[in-house]
This record gives sequence, structure tokens and C-alpha cells, in this order.
Amino acid sequence: MSRIIIQSKLKKFCTSIFKKLGMDYEKAKDTSEVLVEADMMGHSTHGVRLLPLYIKDIEAGNMNITGNQTIINDTGSCITIDGEKLPGIWLTKRGLKLSSERAKIHGVSTVLIKNSHHNGALVAYLLPIVEQGLVPMIKCSVPSSATVAPFGGTKALLTPDPMALAFPTNYEPVLIDISASITTNNMIADKIVKKEMFDFNCLLTRDGIPTNDPKEVFENDGTVMPLGGLEYGHKGFGLALGIEALSQGLSGSGRSRKLKSMNLSIYIQVIDPEAFAGLKAFKNEMSFLYNECVNNPPINKNSKVRMPGQKALLNRKEAIQNGIKFSKQTLMTLDDISRKFDLVFL
Amino acid sequence: MSRIIIQSKLKKFCTSIFKKLGMDYEKAKDTSEVLVEADMMGHSTHGVRLLPLYIKDIEAGNMNITGNQTIINDTGSCITIDGEKLPGIWLTKRGLKLSSERAKIHGVSTVLIKNSHHNGALVAYLLPIVEQGLVPMIKCSVPSSATVAPFGGTKALLTPDPMALAFPTNYEPVLIDISASITTNNMIADKIVKKEMFDFNCLLTRDGIPTNDPKEVFENDGTVMPLGGLEYGHKGFGLALGIEALSQGLSGSGRSRKLKSMNLSIYIQVIDPEAFAGLKAFKNEMSFLYNECVNNPPINKNSKVRMPGQKALLNRKEAIQNGIKFSKQTLMTLDDISRKFDLVFL
Repeated sequence: MSRIIIQSKLKKFCTSIFKKLGMDYEKAKDTSEVLVEADMMGHSTHGVRLLPLYIKDIEAGNMNITGNQTIINDTGSCITIDGEKLPGIWLTKRGLKLSSERAKIHGVSTVLIKNSHHNGALVAYLLPIVEQGLVPMIKCSVPSSATVAPFGGTKALLTPDPMALAFPTNYEPVLIDISASITTNNMIADKIVKKEMFDFNCLLTRDGIPTNDPKEVFENDGTVMPLGGLEYGHKGFGLALGIEALSQGLSGSGRSRKLKSMNLSIYIQVIDPEAFAGLKAFKNEMSFLYNECVNNPPINKNSKVRMPGQKALLNRKEAIQNGIKFSKQTLMTLDDISRKFDLVFL
Repeated sequence: MSRIIIQSKLKKFCTSIFKKLGMDYEKAKDTSEVLVEADMMGHSTHGVRLLPLYIKDIEAGNMNITGNQTIINDTGSCITIDGEKLPGIWLTKRGLKLSSERAKIHGVSTVLIKNSHHNGALVAYLLPIVEQGLVPMIKCSVPSSATVAPFGGTKALLTPDPMALAFPTNYEPVLIDISASITTNNMIADKIVKKEMFDFNCLLTRDGIPTNDPKEVFENDGTVMPLGGLEYGHKGFGLALGIEALSQGLSGSGRSRKLKSMNLSIYIQVIDPEAFAGLKAFKNEMSFLYNECVNNPPINKNSKVRMPGQKALLNRKEAIQNGIKFSKQTLMTLDDISRKFDLVFL
């Protein structure tokens, strides 16, 4: 029931839809590229499956599709931007590019973006930065949304709060993309569509009882457990607070604003190892560590230790050669959009 | 069997011991202060309980006690330091002070320290920095030690890899200090001394079987599980790799050096919110979040949601008023040291 789609055709299809909706060309191209990149890496929960959400928000006026961001503060290495509800992927890509340029001058550069629309999968941005020998970091939170309760609480307050970090080695780069909660909102949505339960209790009912039923969160005021669950969830709660402080505190855009439509605060930092002990020493140490990890005697003899991003890079290589394989649900979504916009995607 | 000790007397006692061993005065004073500060905050695993370890390493020549650190690279906002195996607490305190001064000029300042001796509890450093309206971060790893296996592996390779972050609010500051593993080496040592088991399986035997017996790690080649355990330990593994990359990669001092005696790589970053949307906006947003957290309806009606650091700050206040209460084990340790150095501590 699945079908293979060539990535270049899919990017063109997505770009055409965004253009048809009136989006500026660069914004349409960037948004399409990063959504398809997520699918290529196998992160299908954050790929073109999100198109209907983006289309809906454009039509409702919750995502601005033309015009420019506003620079609020620029000290050279520290930049604060108002994203003006423009496409989050375009904003994040630009933020990373700016931060990388400035990191090469200042060693470390930090970019804060407030009022951004959704920005997809963080892992999908890292490769072009890390290939320049830089260390990119992204930490996001969504002050307009809440699905995670503070540790010990029952009412949704925080977001899954993802964070990504990538670093170069003499082999493949390591691409880390994790959240401060056990699972994410898009994973929950995906499970509901597929009528699946989670493998273990990573959610709480609104009364604080552990559950693996994704519907409890979206339909019954349940919450997602922070990393560490009931046993040591104070750690995930701490991680989340750190991410909310860096993204919402530094940008000055947080939950006190009681925002209604999709609105992200994004913290970006890029580090140039040359400003410290040098890229060569960095890569040598991290290559040693990489080797020691993948050659570590495994618990299960048939599954070697895998580095973060290793599977995503393998999926990406396969997608470039053979196209992307989509689930029946996503194909139906693409068909619906294709009909609605009178645009053929294959 | 416990006894109350006045913190000022304990600091004097520790300083005298370090001085008797030949340590420079400032190093002795700083080391004593941070060890006692950990005890005051209730982090007794990283308090004066560590004295015998420090004394042993001084006597063995593994910790240098006089002389200076070497600046390898100083770009203004990015500083790389060789700690020359000097006391890690003194190095970390100085690094944070330098980073804070530079953050006020550059907005963000990053300090890397390699070849540091042990630096105690990260939470014990944060208060003087956050009280200046700054956001301090510390991430450490110990290339000379290994107790955590990569996710899916069985051989110790990584360290618990702690990270700390603090931020100011209009109320009390939030002090986060967590590790990328479920538990820490000092917690394991403490459980062994107290002949206790962990409440749940947070360790693996050398064959990769979950266990709660602390002795499996120190006596039987077992390992500590990364944050997330068997179910989602890839998240803790990712966190650990990020911390090792920032501390060991950027300082150029990692596991390839096959160091034998206690040797830390430390990443310090201090952020000045004034370089972004401003301290006032930062504190307002974080105060709103603070309030929403502590007033969240709790799972258990008798235990309100607690912010990271809240208990530590309460313990600290109590210790200042009434002294520190020590366990029988720590009191015996202090008595032994008191006799050995012919110094009375009460």
C-alpha cells in the first residue's frame, strides 16, 4: 500500500502549492526542502505529513507568507529577531546561516527568534552547517501550545521542547535531535491516525495515572511525561525548563503572552571549534569516541551500537538513490492536496 | 547518630587541611567553600564526603596544588584554558568569574578548561552568577573515567556527564543540575557505603542485564544506564555525546589520551540576557512560568510541584541558620581526617 516518490519531484510539488497560496519563492522553496529532507531521513512524523497543518494555518492567516523578519537587536555575535509569524522553516534556515557566518567571525554566535511559525524536524537542518566544520545547536519551545506537565503535576504547561546538536568527525557527522519529554506531539498524532498504542506508559491521564493511550493527551486533557517518567522525571523537567529559558526567556516571548495560534521561540547557537582548541583536535577526539561507541560490545549481538543520526543519514542516502517510501496515510494526504490545488505530484 | 556542624567552622577546617598539604591559600579556600556549599544544599554526595579522595590525589601527586593555569587561546568571548591538573573547584570558580565578566561585554562568553581535577557539585557554583542577572551553564565530562555504556552497549565508555544551568526570576532563581545518566558515580559510591540498593533498575550488569545493585558497577564491570534506560536511552546517550563533544571536543582533551588519574574537561558558558530581549523581559517570562509550575495541580495532593533548586535553596537557608546535619559515615570520615592532620573541627 506504500509508494515510492522521487524527492526532487516532491519538493517541486510542495513548492508549487506554497506558491499557489501566495508564499514568496524562497520561503516556499526552503519550507519544501526541509519537510522533504525530514522524510528522506525517515523522520516522517515531521515531513510532508505536516502539509495540511501548514496549509490550514496559511488559509486562516496564522502564518504570514510574504515580507521580512525584523531585527530587534544585533551586537555582532548575539542577534534577536522577531519572526513576524513567517514560515518557521525559512526563519530557522536563515537563522542558522546567519549564526554560522557570525560564528566564523566571533567563535560563538547566538540567534534568538520569536514569533516563528512551526519549523519541522530539527535534525533536517544540521547537515549543511556541520559540513562546514561547525557545531550547530537548536532549542525550541512553543509558548502557544502545552502538552507536558511539570514533574509531579497533572496540567499541561510545557511543550516537548526539542533540542538538536550536531558535530563533525573524520567519518560521518553525529546528528542529535531529542526532546525533553518521552514522546512528542507529532508522534502522538501519528499513533492516533494509525490507531496504535505506545509500547509503554509514557503519558499520564488528567488524574496523573500512567497510560500508553495517545488519545488521552489530545482528547482527554492528559499529558506527556517528561524524560525520566515517574521515576526520575525531574531530569526531563529540568531539561525542559532550560530550553524554555533559553528560547522564551532570551527572546522575551513566552507563555505569559497567552498566544493562541502556532508560535515558536527558537534558540540557535553555532560554535566554531577553531576559536577553541581547533577543528583538527575536535574531530580527532570525536572520531575516537565514535569508534569506541560503534565497536562497544552490544547487549544484543545482532544489533550494534548506533550513533545518533546514523540511521537518518543511511535513510537519506537510500532516498537520494531510490526515492522516498510513504505510508498509505501520507499518500492519501498528498492525493487530497493534489486534487484541492489541481497540481499533479507524480 | 548525626551531628550538626556550623558551616563557617567546617570551611575553616577544610581550608586548614588543604593548607597543611601545601595548597595555595585561594585554592584551599575556594575548594573548601564549594564542598561545604554542596553539603549546605543537601547534595551530600558531592560535599566534604569527597575530602579523602582529594587528599589521596594530592598525596599521590595527581592534583597539583600550587601554580597557575595556562591560557591556550583567548579571543575575548572564547577562552581555552589548560588547568594543569590544579584543583577543579578553583578552576571552575575562576572560569565562571571570567566567563561572567566577558559575557557582560560580549553577551555570551564560553570558557573551556582541560586537565582539571574534580570539581564537585555543579549546583554549588550557580548562585553568585545568577544573582548578577546572568544565565550560567556548566557541562563536564571525565575522559579519565568511564561508567556509562553507549545505548545498546555493555562496556563502560562515557561518564555520567553532568550539566547545570541556572536562571533568574523575580522570585528565587531556578538551579538545574542533572546528568545524562540515570544515576551518578558518587551516588553509587554512597549506596555501597550505606549498603543500600537503588529503588529501581538503573544499572546494567556486564552482560547487559538490568540491576539495582550498585556493586555491579564498581566491582563487576557493570554500567550505569543513560537517561531513558532500556526504553529510550538513546536520548540520554545523545545528551551525553553532546556534553562530551562540547567539553572534550572543544578543549581538545578527550578519551583518546587514555588518561589514568582524575582529569576533567569543562565547558562553561555564561549568557547575559541584556544582549538579547533584556533581563526584565527574561525575568518576567520566567516568573510567569515559575508560578504556573508551582501552582500546577499535583498528582499527589500532599506534594506540590517543586522547581529545580527549590529544595537546595531551602536546605541552604536552614544550614546558614542552624548548621549542617551530617550522616554517621561522613562524621567518621571527618574524625579520621581530623586525627590524621591533628586538626580539631569542632
